[in-house]
Amino acid sequence: MQEGSDPIARMALQLARLPGIGQKSAQRLAYHIAAMPLDQVKDLAAALWQGRKALRFCARCGNYTQGEYCAVCENEERHNGQICVVRDARDVAAMERMRDFRGLYHVLGGTLSPMDGVGPEDIRIKELLQRLSTEEVNEVILATNPDIEGEATAAYIARLIKPMGIKVSRISYGVPVGSDLEYADEVTLAKAMEGRREL
Amino acid sequence: MQEGSDPIARMALQLARLPGIGQKSAQRLAYHIAAMPLDQVKDLAAALWQGRKALRFCARCGNYTQGEYCAVCENEERHNGQICVVRDARDVAAMERMRDFRGLYHVLGGTLSPMDGVGPEDIRIKELLQRLSTEEVNEVILATNPDIEGEATAAYIARLIKPMGIKVSRISYGVPVGSDLEYADEVTLAKAMEGRREL
Repeated sequence: MQEGSDPIARMALQLARLPGIGQKSAQRLAYHIAAMPLDQVKDLAAALWQGRKALRFCARCGNYTQGEYCAVCENEERHNGQICVVRDARDVAAMERMRDFRGLYHVLGGTLSPMDGVGPEDIRIKELLQRLSTEEVNEVILATNPDIEGEATAAYIARLIKPMGIKVSRISYGVPVGSDLEYADEVTLAKAMEGRREL
Repeated sequence: MQEGSDPIARMALQLARLPGIGQKSAQRLAYHIAAMPLDQVKDLAAALWQGRKALRFCARCGNYTQGEYCAVCENEERHNGQICVVRDARDVAAMERMRDFRGLYHVLGGTLSPMDGVGPEDIRIKELLQRLSTEEVNEVILATNPDIEGEATAAYIARLIKPMGIKVSRISYGVPVGSDLEYADEVTLAKAMEGRREL
């Protein structure tokens, strides 16, 4: 079998494009999949493709959803006047694992990064301001990552919102500096929410 | 989004079934796939499913193929009287990366393991003996893994073949004992082939 032309090489090629999967791991996974029962591979492929196809962005907060609004936005009990601003939909999942926060989210879809050419108009800041003018919001909790871009984004948004007379807070440095919010444990996240300070 | 019911959780569930991918990695991969362009996810899912569907076992050696015979068996130049016996088709790929061996393969599809209830009739030993009676074979090179099962399998096969007057050899312990043949580098594999000794 020539590499590149056979099914296993094609599997490995695709798998190696995923983050954290190197050439060797991709080949090992490909051989594992080659030896899996047909129906299990079908389930795997279908979960990825059908799953990806089914995903949309919530029309309000930008979280992943299958309908127009995400499960959080559709839950009336969570319209408590708090909006937690995060970078990615995966950060919503991290926050939800904590189970403490009972407000809504706003997913920016990125953070300000002049080096990478990401400016305020490239992330969903305009949509956040729009929400603040139409929804009843008492507090905006900035939960971007505790890294340079996340801090800069939080500071930028705080500067825009404070003049509107809405309380703006930042999650505390309970989360280890320089780390990724996605990997924080529930207790650390809860502490970070608890220790949030007004900006 | 409820875990278990939403597309991302379904993706993560399926990915976590693959070897070496834990819960956290699976979730991270799922979120990565959720953010990938539709056509890239389609390529990934298609490579896995179409690839798996296209794979058959070579009617002669048991290696993976898309046709009746694998590329090695179909190459007339490789019918040189040598058969290299390996456990899995992935070991064929490891041997092929070495580029030194120019004979044919025989894939056992497992190794003898009384503890796991794998006996001689459960792996393709009968098919190997069949080949020895119909093909012109000068030497059988036993390249099962250098572990207990691999050694036992090699010894068992050697005992069956030696009375037939065919040279039987075992790859040398150039490959580190207790390791997995799949992860051996090309040079080590080449040395192991070179230093093979008759059984």
